[in-house]
Amino acid sequence: MDTTRSKDFSDWYQEVVRIADLAENSLVRGCMVIKPWGMGTWERVQRVLDDRIKATGHDNCYFPLFIPVSLFQKEAEHVEGFAKEMALVTHTRLKIVDGQIKLEGQLEEPLVVRPTSEAIIAETFAQWIQSYRDLPVLVNQWANVVRWEMRPRLFLRTTEFLWQEGHTAHAEEAEAVAETARMLEVYRATMEERLALPVIPGEKAPHERFPGAVATYSVEAMMQDGKAVQAGTSHNLGQGFAKAANIQFQDRAGGLQFVHTTSWGVSTRLIGSVIMTHGDDDGLRLPPAIAASQVVIVPILREDADKAAVLPYCDKLAERLRAASFQGEALRVKIDLRDRKAQDKRWEWVKKGAPLIVEVGPRDVAKGEVCWINRLEIGKKNFESADSFVGQAVERLQAIQDGLLAQARAFRDANIRTDVRDLGAFSEYFSKKSEYLGKGTPGWVRAHWCGDPASLEVLDKMGVTIRNIPFDQKGPGTCVLTGRPAEKEVYFGRAY
Amino acid sequence: MDTTRSKDFSDWYQEVVRIADLAENSLVRGCMVIKPWGMGTWERVQRVLDDRIKATGHDNCYFPLFIPVSLFQKEAEHVEGFAKEMALVTHTRLKIVDGQIKLEGQLEEPLVVRPTSEAIIAETFAQWIQSYRDLPVLVNQWANVVRWEMRPRLFLRTTEFLWQEGHTAHAEEAEAVAETARMLEVYRATMEERLALPVIPGEKAPHERFPGAVATYSVEAMMQDGKAVQAGTSHNLGQGFAKAANIQFQDRAGGLQFVHTTSWGVSTRLIGSVIMTHGDDDGLRLPPAIAASQVVIVPILREDADKAAVLPYCDKLAERLRAASFQGEALRVKIDLRDRKAQDKRWEWVKKGAPLIVEVGPRDVAKGEVCWINRLEIGKKNFESADSFVGQAVERLQAIQDGLLAQARAFRDANIRTDVRDLGAFSEYFSKKSEYLGKGTPGWVRAHWCGDPASLEVLDKMGVTIRNIPFDQKGPGTCVLTGRPAEKEVYFGRAY
Repeated sequence: MDTTRSKDFSDWYQEVVRIADLAENSLVRGCMVIKPWGMGTWERVQRVLDDRIKATGHDNCYFPLFIPVSLFQKEAEHVEGFAKEMALVTHTRLKIVDGQIKLEGQLEEPLVVRPTSEAIIAETFAQWIQSYRDLPVLVNQWANVVRWEMRPRLFLRTTEFLWQEGHTAHAEEAEAVAETARMLEVYRATMEERLALPVIPGEKAPHERFPGAVATYSVEAMMQDGKAVQAGTSHNLGQGFAKAANIQFQDRAGGLQFVHTTSWGVSTRLIGSVIMTHGDDDGLRLPPAIAASQVVIVPILREDADKAAVLPYCDKLAERLRAASFQGEALRVKIDLRDRKAQDKRWEWVKKGAPLIVEVGPRDVAKGEVCWINRLEIGKKNFESADSFVGQAVERLQAIQDGLLAQARAFRDANIRTDVRDLGAFSEYFSKKSEYLGKGTPGWVRAHWCGDPASLEVLDKMGVTIRNIPFDQKGPGTCVLTGRPAEKEVYFGRAY
Repeated sequence: MDTTRSKDFSDWYQEVVRIADLAENSLVRGCMVIKPWGMGTWERVQRVLDDRIKATGHDNCYFPLFIPVSLFQKEAEHVEGFAKEMALVTHTRLKIVDGQIKLEGQLEEPLVVRPTSEAIIAETFAQWIQSYRDLPVLVNQWANVVRWEMRPRLFLRTTEFLWQEGHTAHAEEAEAVAETARMLEVYRATMEERLALPVIPGEKAPHERFPGAVATYSVEAMMQDGKAVQAGTSHNLGQGFAKAANIQFQDRAGGLQFVHTTSWGVSTRLIGSVIMTHGDDDGLRLPPAIAASQVVIVPILREDADKAAVLPYCDKLAERLRAASFQGEALRVKIDLRDRKAQDKRWEWVKKGAPLIVEVGPRDVAKGEVCWINRLEIGKKNFESADSFVGQAVERLQAIQDGLLAQARAFRDANIRTDVRDLGAFSEYFSKKSEYLGKGTPGWVRAHWCGDPASLEVLDKMGVTIRNIPFDQKGPGTCVLTGRPAEKEVYFGRAY
C-alpha cells in the first residue's frame, strides 16, 4: 500500500476501498458504484441479517421510492430533519430541442426520493390496520435511499446508499418498546457474531434522536482511529407517525386507539465499519462469515502444460471444500483462473482480505499438497497435505472469525478511558486529532453526563459527541463536563 | 372469488392480486406496495435466477440510481426511447414557509431516475476497461427502475418496478452475440424449470428493438386470455454505447478497439405472468420452486386445551419436512398460528396458492395422521399417516411443479394457430377481444411475415403485435399479411 494507517488513516481508508476493489465514486456526485467484491460482501451481510430479521417474525415488503411532499409534511419534526438533503422529482418528461434540454410534464406536487420510509409506510399501515387482530404488523424492506450529501465518502456517507429498514406497528406501548430492544439486540448479535464488530448498545441522547422518534437506540463501533461509527439504529416512534397518518385500530374493548410504531435500520455504512475495524496495512481482512469467497485457490501455471495436472487438482480441492459447511452453509470457494501471474493474484486476494488463500502448482500436485496462507498471518506460508487442509479448513475459518472479533474487542476496550473525571482531563484527552490509535489518538471516554443541553456546546468545540447511554449502568455520579450530579454514564467520542 | 377468468379476465387478475395479498396500489400514482406474499415470491425468483446468473460467470454490482441527463443524451436513440417517461430530479432542498413548500438547491443539471442503466454503466466500463485482459466484463445488478407510466397495472406496468439488469462488455462481436443468446437461454430455462412458464425464445422485429440496440431477443409467454407477456429481454448493443462512452481497449496486437456490449433483464412483471398463467378461479397457484412457503400447516384449535397436543405435533411435522430437500434446498414450511378460524386460514392459503396445505386437529394427532390438500386438486381432502405424508412431500411438490408447467404448455400449444394463411383468416381470427380463452378468444398465430414496415399498420389497427421471430424456422413461405414472399415465420398476438 502507498500509505499506512498510522501515516494517514483517512487516505489509508480510501486506498483500501480502492485496492480491495470494493467501490468507487461514480460520475454522479455523492453516488458510488459498488464493485463485485464490495457487493459480494454486502450480499453476505444482507443474507445473515435477513435470516435473523425473518427468524424474529418479520416479512419483507417493498414500498415506493417516491413520497409526496405532503405526506412527508404530516410529521413536522420528520420533515424538518430531512428537508435539507432531499432529492426532489419535479418533472416526468424530457424534450431535446436543438440539443437543448427542456423539462416537461411538471408534477402538481413534487415527490421526495425516499431518505427513509416512515411517512409512506405509516400511510400504508393506516390501510392495513383496522383491528387489534391485525397487530402487530412486522415488516422490513431492503432498499436504496437518498440523502443529499455535501461531503461524500465511500460507504460511510453517500448520497445514495443501500439499507434495510424495518417498520412495525403494535397495539401496546410496551410491545413497541420491546420490539425496539429486540431489533437492537439482533443488530448487536449479528455484528458481533458475523461481522466480528464488537458494538455497544445504548440509547441516544435526546438531541440525537431520529426526527420524529420518542427514543432512539444505537449500536456503536470503534474504528482504528478511535472514532465511532453508529452502526445501526432502532427507533421507538411512539404515536407520532400513527397520529400523523391516522393509524387507528379497534381494541378488544371496542375502543379506537392509535398504534405505536417502531423503525430500525442498518446500511452499506457497515462495510465502511468492517474496513476501518479489521483492515491492516496490507489491505482488508474479512470475517469469513461475510466473505463472498472464504477460500481462494490460485493455480500456479508457469506453462500451458501445467494446466492438465493443476486444474483438475484445484477443481477436486474446491469440490471437497464445498462439501464442508461453515456456520450452516457450504464453504464458499473460488478458483482464480484469470490470466495473470500467480503471485500477483495472491497479493490481490491478500488486499481483498480473503480469509484463506491457497496456491497450487505442479509440485504440490505431485506431492498431494497445498501451500496456503491465513490472512491474519500473511508472513507465514504453510505447506500441508490437501487432505489435512480440507479437514481443518472450517476450524481455521472459525479461528479467523474469532480472532478478528477478539482483536477488535481488545483494541476497543484498551481505548475506552473510564478514569476521566473532570473537564480538564477530558479536554486534554480529546485535544489530539483522531488518527490511527498507535499515535496516542483519543478513543472514547465513558463517564457521567448530567444531560444539560448547554454542556453540548463544550463538546461541539472539541468535535466530540455523545455516542450513547449504554444499558449497563452502575449508578449516579458526577458529570464530567459540568461537575454536577448525573444519573447515568455515557460514551463520548468523535464520530463518522 | 367475486369474479372468474371467463367473466372478466382483467377484473379476475386484479382480484387475485388482492386476495392472494401480493401487492396493492400506493398513494403514489403508478407505484405499488409489494406485500409479504408477493415479496416472498419475488425473493424466490431472485434467488433461483441469481444463482444461474452467477453460475454463468457474472458478478453483482450496484450502480447509481441517478443518471445526469447529459450522459443519457450521448446515445441519441436511447434518450429518444425513454424521454417521455423519465422522473427528473431538479432540486435538493425543501423549505416550508408558512406551510408553503419552496424548492431550493436547484441542480445545474437535472438527474434522471434510472429507467435502465446502460448510460451510466457504459461510463463506468470506460473507466474499468483498458486492455483485452480486462475483458470480458460480466456484471449484473438487482435494482429499482422508474418509467413514468400513464396506465399503471400492478406488477405488469408500474412506474417503479424491481428488476435485474445484466451488462457485459466483450472484445469480439461474436462473444457479445453468444452472451446475448446465453442469457436468453438462462431466462428460458429458469422460467420453465422454476416458474413453470413455458416461453418462446426468439428475436424481436427491428421496430421493437431496445432503444440503442442492434438486436433484441425475448422470451414470450402466453397468458390465459391469449395475450402475450414479454417475460424477459436480452440485447446485443453492438458498439453504440461503447462509442458514445468511449469504451476502448488495447487488443492483443496493440491496436485500439471499441468493445461490444450487451444488456438483459427481467422484472417484477414476471409475478404478473405467473398469476395470469397459473391462477384459477380460486386464486393463485404457485409453482413450488418459487413459493415462499411450499407446505403450510394449519393447526385446528377448537379450544385452548387442543394446543398442548396439536402444536408440538405441528412443530415436529414441520421439522421433519424441513429436513427434506426440494431442488437442492430445505423445504419451506410455515405453521400458520394466527388467531383465526382454521377453515378461513385454509381458504386463505388456497387463494394464495400454497402448493400443499395441511390441517392438523386433535383427532389427527390421536391417529398420527394429517389431512392435506394439493392446490391443483382442492376439491379432494386427503387423509394419510404423517409418516407417509412426510415421505412423499417432495415427490408431490415435484408433481405440482411439473403439472403446472404441463398445463401451461398444453394450454399455450392449443392456442397457437399455424394454419392461418392470409389476411382474411388472420383478421377473422383476431376479430375477437382477448378475454379468457374459454370464450373462443384469439391466442397467437405463427405465420410467415415479410418484414415490410407498412404491414405493421394493418396489425396496429387490430391491436396485434409481432411477438418475436422464433429461432426454430422451417424455411421461406408467404407473408400472411401481404402475400409476398417471406423468409421467416413470426408469432403474432396481442400483448401486455
